[in-house]
Amino acid sequence: MDDLLERLRAGLPAEALLTDPDVTASYAHDMASFCEAGTPAVVVLPRTVEQVQHVMRTATALRVPVVPQGARTGLSGAANASEGCVVLSLVRMDRILEINPVDRIAVVEPGVINAVLSRAVNEHGLCYPPDPSSWETCTIGGNIGTASGGLCCVKYGVTAEYVLGLDVVLADGRLLTTGRRTAKGVAGYDLTRLFVGSEGSLGIVVGAVLALKPQPPRQLALAAEFGSAAAACDAVCRIMEAGHTPSLLELMDGTTVRAVNAMAGMGLPETTEALLLCAFDTSDPAADLAAVGLLCTAAGATEVVPAEDTAESEMLLQARRMSLTALETISSATMIDDVCVPRSKLGAMLEGTAAIAEKYGLTIGVCAHAGDGNTHPVVCFDHTDADESRRARESFDEIMALGLGLGGTITGEHGVGVLKKEWLARELGEVGIELQRGIKAAFDPLGLLNPGKLF
Amino acid sequence: MDDLLERLRAGLPAEALLTDPDVTASYAHDMASFCEAGTPAVVVLPRTVEQVQHVMRTATALRVPVVPQGARTGLSGAANASEGCVVLSLVRMDRILEINPVDRIAVVEPGVINAVLSRAVNEHGLCYPPDPSSWETCTIGGNIGTASGGLCCVKYGVTAEYVLGLDVVLADGRLLTTGRRTAKGVAGYDLTRLFVGSEGSLGIVVGAVLALKPQPPRQLALAAEFGSAAAACDAVCRIMEAGHTPSLLELMDGTTVRAVNAMAGMGLPETTEALLLCAFDTSDPAADLAAVGLLCTAAGATEVVPAEDTAESEMLLQARRMSLTALETISSATMIDDVCVPRSKLGAMLEGTAAIAEKYGLTIGVCAHAGDGNTHPVVCFDHTDADESRRARESFDEIMALGLGLGGTITGEHGVGVLKKEWLARELGEVGIELQRGIKAAFDPLGLLNPGKLF
Repeated sequence: MDDLLERLRAGLPAEALLTDPDVTASYAHDMASFCEAGTPAVVVLPRTVEQVQHVMRTATALRVPVVPQGARTGLSGAANASEGCVVLSLVRMDRILEINPVDRIAVVEPGVINAVLSRAVNEHGLCYPPDPSSWETCTIGGNIGTASGGLCCVKYGVTAEYVLGLDVVLADGRLLTTGRRTAKGVAGYDLTRLFVGSEGSLGIVVGAVLALKPQPPRQLALAAEFGSAAAACDAVCRIMEAGHTPSLLELMDGTTVRAVNAMAGMGLPETTEALLLCAFDTSDPAADLAAVGLLCTAAGATEVVPAEDTAESEMLLQARRMSLTALETISSATMIDDVCVPRSKLGAMLEGTAAIAEKYGLTIGVCAHAGDGNTHPVVCFDHTDADESRRARESFDEIMALGLGLGGTITGEHGVGVLKKEWLARELGEVGIELQRGIKAAFDPLGLLNPGKLF
Repeated sequence: MDDLLERLRAGLPAEALLTDPDVTASYAHDMASFCEAGTPAVVVLPRTVEQVQHVMRTATALRVPVVPQGARTGLSGAANASEGCVVLSLVRMDRILEINPVDRIAVVEPGVINAVLSRAVNEHGLCYPPDPSSWETCTIGGNIGTASGGLCCVKYGVTAEYVLGLDVVLADGRLLTTGRRTAKGVAGYDLTRLFVGSEGSLGIVVGAVLALKPQPPRQLALAAEFGSAAAACDAVCRIMEAGHTPSLLELMDGTTVRAVNAMAGMGLPETTEALLLCAFDTSDPAADLAAVGLLCTAAGATEVVPAEDTAESEMLLQARRMSLTALETISSATMIDDVCVPRSKLGAMLEGTAAIAEKYGLTIGVCAHAGDGNTHPVVCFDHTDADESRRARESFDEIMALGLGLGGTITGEHGVGVLKKEWLARELGEVGIELQRGIKAAFDPLGLLNPGKLF
């Protein structure tokens, strides 16, 4: 331990090292509740690539595990410390190095906040679409590590689709550059994509070339109320089958709607069983919304309310964005699931989730990126009640089993981390896990990078 | 050899095996000229996954290399036989297993022809965008192996962005399923993406889940003539910087235009130094084209001619699609390059290529997916002239060096194969190549899958 600190100090300014146990303890975990976390030996906050290389060389020399962190807004424990590790926080490497409107790229350091980048590129008439709910605080490096999604994905895809190239410090401190600054490129295996979603287990991302898009018109939304989740899911299928390309297609169940109203007095309709939000950022969004409104009515919507203007649309989005936070206020504890199914199975997923809630006698509120079939069932429980906690865990698992049975995945966008590592093997199977381990061994033969995550 | 045939026959119908040397010789190489190719020991044409597994188990047991093939329309020798190998042609596994308009996916076998799939999904109001020039004959499996591009990429991206999940037979015959049928998913490292563009070196793709998009309106095009390639490239930059999203943005230099006219009497303007084709499939393409026309004029276009209708637009596209073929008629032999640079460097790339042509005393025609910065310089030469052949090879290499110097890649969409394997190391560097080899070893420890390609 003394040796570790001494060696780290040799290549880092004093302000880059945190060793006070009260301070380092605050870096022990991300936003996932109930995931195991160890105590870091030290927290390092580098400002340069060379400093990151020094940390990794030191860690390799001393065989000390390293856990990379962004803003720790993750929901699966992927950034949780392991016992005695070096926490490597990239938040101070937060420069936007380039925004190029002709090449439509940005070159950034990993600690840049998603919203800061978004606003910076907006000034050039560009947009960086990936928008996880935590976009005001989460970092691009964290988004890359967890392959974040967001509300925009139904039209604009996920983080992975915007990462063109990376600078990565490997476990042994060597610097690897992957990918490209070009629109296309197929030179060798796609290492860039391999790092996206790897949860810091293959290397430390210290720089990224990101693709940008022209800024679309501001979106216009509508809200449709339904008497059942099944009817809302039917509407989702009709909208997608008809060939629409909404910029947002979100679902909040009755529990979620009431939780949002209780928290923020949003004035959403209290009696609805499912609220569907749909938006378009096309050249004529009102026309697109009118067509979607008819499809909602045909699917059984009890009311269809187009937003008056973009401000009212933004208010609806805000309501959706605060869904998880609002559901967390219902009980002393929550477990947030992230099952994604083919959208044709969304109705079955929601019905099955309701049945699981009833079976275990729990409240499970669901909000969903409905257009992607990506549901976030939030299991609410009293963590001081041992039996209720057990039922919560079992229902959480049963929701994943339900999703896999419907041809889905255990995680659409939150990642595996600590929370779902037992489940990864169930989804991928023996052959898949063996190959994943083979890749891990090729990149990190000593197993020092974020150990105990994913597998 | 007798042992190989005997063992293969034990698990395959007689019609699946080709052993006549005159026939098997015709499977020795793809469309890349001048790439080394060995003589296959046998060609196998399986119809089922089990048959592919039998082939791979046999090859592993006997340590015989296997070279997977689609329609052999590739341009880098990636499908070329190695001496004594089993050629595994997937062309008979050509079923479309599912088209799902709600989930917007297709499930296909690898031998499905790109155009057959495209037309089939069109009937459901959907489209499968990737459209390499060979789309009427190339297979989806080949597209996945080489990570094919096409004309649509400037708006719709490349093959990789449409591959959601794969069934893959590994070197030892085990079946791996990667990815998903869902719109999103982040469970573990992205093995799906790793296979795309791996040129058959990691496993045999025997099935794919492909993402589809709603069919856009038919595109409308314009042609703009320029007095220099530099002016045309300036127009490209202005168009992209202004935030336009054309569905096609292609460039043909004067040599290419004249070659296309000579071959097909297309009536393109003979005196132009650079012809830019731009198309939109938006709700009001005429308005978008008018705006682009003004930008072209501002960049120095000598003439801007909007197509009268979609039929005339399609004619312009046909002219562009036949560019490579037309350039091949200029001389007895050609070498087709595929350098992609940041689009802001496109002008420098074309000027540099012209200087290389002059330096070596050769004709080098260039067509380009200009919106992507992806150029196809075609080096024309007399292959019976040793000195000219040497100069062709040197100029071909110098074009790649030029592209790398401009921050580009040696291959935007044609792949590495045999043609560019010495160059891959130059682009990726020592660390990158070492990790690529590590991945190869994890998937194919005996090195039996398409040996001698990529590295």
